[in-house]
This record gives sequence, C-alpha cells and structure tokens, in this order.
Amino acid sequence: MLKESKYGIGVVVKGEFEATVARATDALKAEGFGILTTIDVTQTLKQKLNVDFRKYVILGACNPPLSHRALLAELEIGLLLPCNVIVYDRGDGTMGVSAMAPVPAMGMVANPALASVAAEADARLRRVLAVIEGGR
Amino acid sequence: MLKESKYGIGVVVKGEFEATVARATDALKAEGFGILTTIDVTQTLKQKLNVDFRKYVILGACNPPLSHRALLAELEIGLLLPCNVIVYDRGDGTMGVSAMAPVPAMGMVANPALASVAAEADARLRRVLAVIEGGR
Repeated sequence: MLKESKYGIGVVVKGEFEATVARATDALKAEGFGILTTIDVTQTLKQKLNVDFRKYVILGACNPPLSHRALLAELEIGLLLPCNVIVYDRGDGTMGVSAMAPVPAMGMVANPALASVAAEADARLRRVLAVIEGGR
Repeated sequence: MLKESKYGIGVVVKGEFEATVARATDALKAEGFGILTTIDVTQTLKQKLNVDFRKYVILGACNPPLSHRALLAELEIGLLLPCNVIVYDRGDGTMGVSAMAPVPAMGMVANPALASVAAEADARLRRVLAVIEGGR
C-alpha cells in the first residue's frame, strides 16, 4: 500500500537490503529513470562521523526527457534534481522504499509550466513503487 | 548580492565555468560541506538525448553532522539530501551559483525538530555564497 507524506511517496517491502536496491533500480529503469548518483548513507556517516547507522541508500534517479523539460521551464530546477529514491532497512525484516513526491516539490517552485512535468513524474514513480511492492 | 527564490538562494559571479565550480567546492568545504555527487547536466543531456545545453553542474553537498541530525529527526529526510548546489553558465560571461534553500525545503516536511538544522544549513550556505561572490 502506497503511503504518502508531505514530501514523499513510498512502500514497505519484505526482502534483503541489496536485493531491494536492485529491484528499485530495475523498476526505475523500466519507467525511464536511470540512476545518476548513489549515496551510501551508512558508509558516509561511518567514514565522516564514525557513527553506526542503519542500511540506507539515496539513489539519484533521472528521467532525461522529463529533466530536460523541467530545465527548459525553470533553469534553476537543478536544485531539485535528480529525483531522490531512498531505500532503508526498517530493522524489522522490511525495507522502506520512498521517492521524493514531485508534485509538492515542484509546487514549492510555483511555476505553472512545471505542473505537467511533475504530474508525469508522479505517475511514473507511483508505477515504479507499485512494481517494487508487487515484487515483479 | 544574494537573490532568493521560493526554493533557492544564489549569486551571480564573473569568471570561467570550471573555475567557478572549483571556487564553489572550496567555499563549501570551508563550511563543512563535502561534495558527495557531481552531475554534469550538459554531458548527461548530450549523451541521453543528444541535446545541446548550457554548461550546468549539480553538486550534491553534504555537511555530515547536519545530515546526521536531520536523519535522526526525520528518517526519510534522505529524500531531500544532499543539499544541491548548482553552477551554470548564464551565457553573458557570468555564472549562476545557487543552493537549495534549506528552510522552505525542510519546511515542506513540517517537522519542528528540523527547524534548527535548516536554520544552521541556511546560515552556512549564505556564508558560502558570500565567499563565492567575494571571490576570496
């Protein structure tokens, strides 16, 4: 079941962490999102602060045609790109997979030319999350 | 002069693109922000869409103690991390350097525990931009 927060949309799934990251990557690819960046939050916090933190990764997902449209409509939209997708261990045998909610994020920009881009990104990310949850 | 949009704070500076990226990187480092990711928007759009686009880079800047505090206060805040800083060629001999405005971005989350993190990130990024603009 998709849960929505003020800034994210996400699902909770059973499975191993690395397998869930791979499943998320595949599902994003099927909707035209390539992974441009990967931040291993756990490793970064360990290296920089010597802090132990749950397994947590931030994937920077980019759909090039949508990003291009967004940049042409709003030059500084790069401040909100790529679209982050996070995978983290909930510590109970389940993993959280969430995506930045494009509609509120783009809404912050208050540029009507971005509305259709945000709506399309939102629809694609919801399909991605449904696929991840379905385990297909 | 710092200009503010609904989602960003930025300056316009004279100089070459690559030198401005280096100057931004140094100024960020002085305020405790390391660059975790770099997206060459120009190259990405060329490779994926065969489109020509102005020089434009998205730097994923992370201040580890602030990020850690944010993650402890709000687990899914990774959706809004790292803090993006963009550098782009304005085509008139000047470069735009902007940072995601932490206060409205974190405000979207509506978690009071994030307010002090957002305020500190905001203060640090304003100092970064002042240094970049001053060319020191």
